[in-house]
Parts: sequence; C-alpha cells; structure tokens
Amino acid sequence: MQKHKKVCLVAGGAGFIGVNLAKALIKQGNDVVIGDNFSLGSKNNIQDYISEDFSNFLDVDLSSFDGVEQLFEFCLAKFQRVDEVWHLAANSDIPAGVNDPNVDLKDTFLTTFELLKGCQRNSVKQFNFASSSAVYGDWGLEPLREDLGPLKPISNYGAMKLASEAQICAASDSFLDSACIFRFPNVVGSPATHGVILDFIRKLSETPSCLHVLGDGSQKKSYLHVSELVEAMIFVSAKKNVTEIVNIGCDDNGILVSEIAKIVVGLFAPDAEIKFGQGQKGWIGDVPKFSYDVSRLESLGWKPKNNSYQAVYLAAQEIIASYEDLIN
Amino acid sequence: MQKHKKVCLVAGGAGFIGVNLAKALIKQGNDVVIGDNFSLGSKNNIQDYISEDFSNFLDVDLSSFDGVEQLFEFCLAKFQRVDEVWHLAANSDIPAGVNDPNVDLKDTFLTTFELLKGCQRNSVKQFNFASSSAVYGDWGLEPLREDLGPLKPISNYGAMKLASEAQICAASDSFLDSACIFRFPNVVGSPATHGVILDFIRKLSETPSCLHVLGDGSQKKSYLHVSELVEAMIFVSAKKNVTEIVNIGCDDNGILVSEIAKIVVGLFAPDAEIKFGQGQKGWIGDVPKFSYDVSRLESLGWKPKNNSYQAVYLAAQEIIASYEDLIN
Repeated sequence: MQKHKKVCLVAGGAGFIGVNLAKALIKQGNDVVIGDNFSLGSKNNIQDYISEDFSNFLDVDLSSFDGVEQLFEFCLAKFQRVDEVWHLAANSDIPAGVNDPNVDLKDTFLTTFELLKGCQRNSVKQFNFASSSAVYGDWGLEPLREDLGPLKPISNYGAMKLASEAQICAASDSFLDSACIFRFPNVVGSPATHGVILDFIRKLSETPSCLHVLGDGSQKKSYLHVSELVEAMIFVSAKKNVTEIVNIGCDDNGILVSEIAKIVVGLFAPDAEIKFGQGQKGWIGDVPKFSYDVSRLESLGWKPKNNSYQAVYLAAQEIIASYEDLIN
Repeated sequence: MQKHKKVCLVAGGAGFIGVNLAKALIKQGNDVVIGDNFSLGSKNNIQDYISEDFSNFLDVDLSSFDGVEQLFEFCLAKFQRVDEVWHLAANSDIPAGVNDPNVDLKDTFLTTFELLKGCQRNSVKQFNFASSSAVYGDWGLEPLREDLGPLKPISNYGAMKLASEAQICAASDSFLDSACIFRFPNVVGSPATHGVILDFIRKLSETPSCLHVLGDGSQKKSYLHVSELVEAMIFVSAKKNVTEIVNIGCDDNGILVSEIAKIVVGLFAPDAEIKFGQGQKGWIGDVPKFSYDVSRLESLGWKPKNNSYQAVYLAAQEIIASYEDLIN
C-alpha cells in the first residue's frame, strides 16, 4: 500500500477497463469515486469486480456540464477533495461512431472537454486519460511510435480521442500540473463487453460445430491483458511528468485473428471447425494490421510480463468462465 | 480563368482571410456562396472587398446542424450543386478561447464537425480547411514540419484546430474524395480584424508620440501576405491529393516584433518613440518564437514571392490606408 492516500475520480469506471482500474486504485489504499452513464458499463461490473458494498458511484452523463458538476459534488461531499481524475469514459463501439459521428463527439470527446472544465473549476491538477492506438490511423507495417506525425485517424472514434489529447495538452499548459495520455493497445480480459474473443464465444454458443471468422484471419494485432494495462497506467501516472503521451502495449508483433480463433475453439468448443471469410478489413475505421513501439514505456521503466498470445489465452479463459456463469 | 466553373461554399467567408479567398475564387470564374455568422467578419468586408452587388451570402451559425443545413439549401437553390467546401470559420480571438473553452469548441471545432456532416448529406467530396501553426504547440527553435509529433497545442484554439484536422481525416477515409488541410502561418493584410499591426496602429492613433510594445520585442514570427496565402490554397487544392496536410508560409526565419514596430511607426507616425516591455510571452497560449518548414509546400510547386518583412510592410500600408479611410 502506498504512503499517501489519494482521492481518485474514475470517469467511465463501470466499463471493462474502468472497473479494473478502480479496483487496482482501491487495492493501493486510495479512495475511489466512479462516474458512469452505464450505457456500456454496468452496475454488475461494480458489484462483481469491486465489491457488493461499494457505493461510491454515480449514474451521470459526463458529456454535460451538469453531469460533471454532480460528480465532483458527490466526490467532495464524501471525501472533501479530488486529487486525480482518471478519464476512461468513451464510446467504445467504433462501428456505432462510424454510422453516427455524434456518438463519438458526445461520449468520446465532450466527456473529456467537460471533465477538464470540472478540473479547472475544482483545482484538480492531475489528469489521466485513456487514449487509443486509433489516433494513429493506418501506417501499414511501420511501428507506431508516439512521435509519428501527421496523425490521420480513420475513424470518428480515433478522431475524437485525438481531439481529447489536444484539449488535454492545452489544459496542461494552462491549469494542470501533469497529464498522462495513455495510447491503449487492444486490451483483453474480463468483464468484456465487446471484442473478438467475446464475438467468437457468442458465435460458438449459437453454432457449436463451426466458427465463422469475419475476414481471412490474417489480421494481426498486439494485445495486452487488462491487469497489466492498469498496472502500467498507475506506474506511469505516479511519475507525474508534465505531459506524458505514451503507448501502452507489448513489444511483440501481435497475434493473428486465426490464432485467436484456435485459442477460443480449443478452450470452448474443441470439436468446432474454423471457417474464414475473405479480405482483411472487418469494418470501416478498423486498422487491419499494426505493430506498436513501446520503447518509450520501457524507458520509463515498465514492461509487460505476458506477450499478446498469453494475454489472449488468459483473457479467453476468464471470459469463458464468466460467460458460463452467466448462462448457467 | 479556369476551364471548369465550380460552385464553392466558403464558410467564414466574411472574415479577413475568407473574403480574400472568396474574391480569388470568383476571379477564377467560380460561383461562390459565403456563410458567416458575422461575429468577427462583417458585411462591409463583402461589399468593400468583393462587390457591392454580391448577394450570395447567408448569416448563419455554422456550429449548428440547422445553420449548415440552411447554407447548403441556399447554395443548392442558387446553383443546384456544391462542388467544394472551403472552411475558414473559426474563433480567431485566441485569448477569448483561453478564458472560455466553449468559444473554441463551438466556433472552431463544431463548425468543422457540422460542415463535414453537411458534406456527407449532400455528397460533397472536396473539403479544404484552414488549420493553423497553433496545432504544433511550442517546439522552441525546431522548425515546424508537418510530420512532427506528438502535437501538444498550448491553446484551446490550437486544440480545436487539431481536433478539426482529426475529424476531417476520418471523413476523408469514409466519404470525402480529397481533403486539404492548410496549416496557416501568421497572415497579414487587409481587412485586418486583429493582430500586431492593427494593434500598433490603434495605439499610435491614441498616443501618436509613443508606441508601447507588449513584451521585449524579441518575439519572432514568420508572416505571409493574405494574397499569397489564398494563391497557395487554391494551387494546392487543385492538385486534389487524397488527404494533404501542408504548412503554408515563407521559408525565412520571420520578423521580430521590434521590426514590425519600426515599420508601422515609420509609415504611420514617424516621430513616435518605441518603448518595449519585458519578457517574450504576450498571453497564455501564445507561442513566442517559431520557424516554419515549408519544404512540403515547395515540393508541391509553390513558393511565396514576398518574405516576412515584405509581407508585413505591404500589409501595414494597406491597413493604414483602410484605417485612414475609416476614421476620415
């Protein structure tokens, strides 16, 4: 347990990554308040993954002035101060944002915008943000480094994450003491709300004899397990650099969709046949293949223990376990 | 005059740069419609700089769905189509955006967001955007190249210009055929609404014997005359590359504020004494010194004829001429 107890406000703290982060912050001895609109996150996540007794959460729309104001008031009433904001609220359904740009404007960008205004009003000096590899756009096989430019995101989701980064940088020059911008890789683990592993499990539940894979299976992505992601965020944030933009991920070249299919089939439906489609792209705004440069993270002193294959394997076990709980 | 007449929608076309661009597009033989909220632009600009008879303009709020819809309807009613959008609408008052981030959210970013939605609804395939050197943030003496990263804008204005770039890139991957993102330098010329030259003239009008300069005069910036800026934009846009992000500016190292003071004093109040303040920064969000790398623009085939000194000199002459008209 760390020396100084902090009061941490976790925006989007009922979602997949948020609930894992909140749990880790609590485990360190901090006071944690969660704000979430429960559109993608759920109250079950808080009960199952943190504690049945945890009552420091508020159902609010963090893309509005009033919602953010309510959350700060709630936190101040309970703990008399806010030391840090951890902003993980976002639309995580990329295709939804492709169909309607207003979704990402509101849930991915305006949440950042209003939370920053809340920090300024309430003199909060430390802001931590869940950005994404989606800010880079499509660089083909070139490893994604933080100093690449110009960035041309290919989805509204990536655009609104980049917009958020920009607004945080301006706030950092004005009223924040320090800001950490974490460019997330693909993250796996439990409680999953979407993603390739859960998709495969759902498909296999419906037709246990066969798994139809979207695309030819040659998509290759790097994955990190959520427990390690959360560990890296807390590690980097504790360094309190002025404005840190850092990729979090593995230093491997990722794992093929075809390999993920084999892992899930092996664990969940060993007799199923795997059938592949054609082409690489799953949907508009999806970057088919990328490799992540994490040398900046390593130079800060952090490395993951699991590679992409191990992270996916561990996550598949966890998701299957909770999926079986759910349907039994 | 070019071969094919185009229908061009100029958002922010009553402002300083917009009115010069609209005039140049008309001179090329195109049909032009201007949309502006006339908060910083003025109807006088349209009458004085384009024509007294020019009636293709609409007073609309382009940060709203309804405003953009009205503008497209207005243009379609007059010319039955829209070929290109030139988006120059923005809050150009950087300190106003420092005091209230909502100003840049609405006027600098939401204008981009809603205009892009308008393009998608109306099948407009070419989008040209006035971005800014403010997207870079403070790189000290390092020349600003388009491929620098990560970008950390230090003003809300710069942040919302970068957010706009991001959203345009996503649109470009989805429904646009081509998008030009022009990162503007400091631009001088007439009809000026703000800026160092106009500030000096106003101060000298009030106290003709003395010019008090904010800061120590050692700020150095590159300037381009608006006539050349507009020429470069039209030149690059005609190339119709998929997504072009390009600095527009001079290849010189810029001009000192102290030299600008001498030019204005020399032309407007030759007997005035110049007194300097202390420090380099004029206000929060102002980047004190930068040099612009325009090799990308040169490789596309365009170079300015005037250097920064000549551009400022020419602009000072023009602004003084129109200022004297105004007060006589």
